[in-house]
Amino acid sequence: MIKVSVFYPNQPGSKFDMDYYCNSHIPLAKKLIGSALKGASVDQGIAGGAPGAPADYVAIGHLLFDSVEAFQNGFGPHTAVLMADAVNYTTVQPTMQISEIRM
Amino acid sequence: MIKVSVFYPNQPGSKFDMDYYCNSHIPLAKKLIGSALKGASVDQGIAGGAPGAPADYVAIGHLLFDSVEAFQNGFGPHTAVLMADAVNYTTVQPTMQISEIRM
Repeated sequence: MIKVSVFYPNQPGSKFDMDYYCNSHIPLAKKLIGSALKGASVDQGIAGGAPGAPADYVAIGHLLFDSVEAFQNGFGPHTAVLMADAVNYTTVQPTMQISEIRM
Repeated sequence: MIKVSVFYPNQPGSKFDMDYYCNSHIPLAKKLIGSALKGASVDQGIAGGAPGAPADYVAIGHLLFDSVEAFQNGFGPHTAVLMADAVNYTTVQPTMQISEIRM
């Protein structure tokens, strides 16, 4: 199983609409990707490691797929639509990584 | 439910022993923290967002707790032991954040 994680940096003055992300964007991703998407979860950053420090990421979204190929085939055709939807919930430029779930 | 995520940056020349992390470090954390720990998972970074780009993080460990207080009470007394164990699997200085699991 692989996890595609999208990291939204916690930048001063930036916007992130968590309700839209959870209730519109992720459901849109589920609808478009269909059965290739094996799971989705959303973390909302609330604190950093040091006392009083803010979280590095205001939000992290995780999408699960059986394999990198399943991600590429399932997500690829919908990349433009999903990226275009981002303006509806954030002004932040996210980063992304693909991970293998080891445990 | 909250998630404590520990991010190990993917730095050139640095070491990260995934087998030790999964088979010794996380089990040590489970043993020390006990029932306050509601779950643990490990992601191994395999690719970044751009084609051919490396993952930003070589590994991300996630620990689940019922609340920030449960994390502080359950993890706090064992911080020194767990941080001291890090030299056994990595030369990287990790970052950390606490997130609320929104979905």
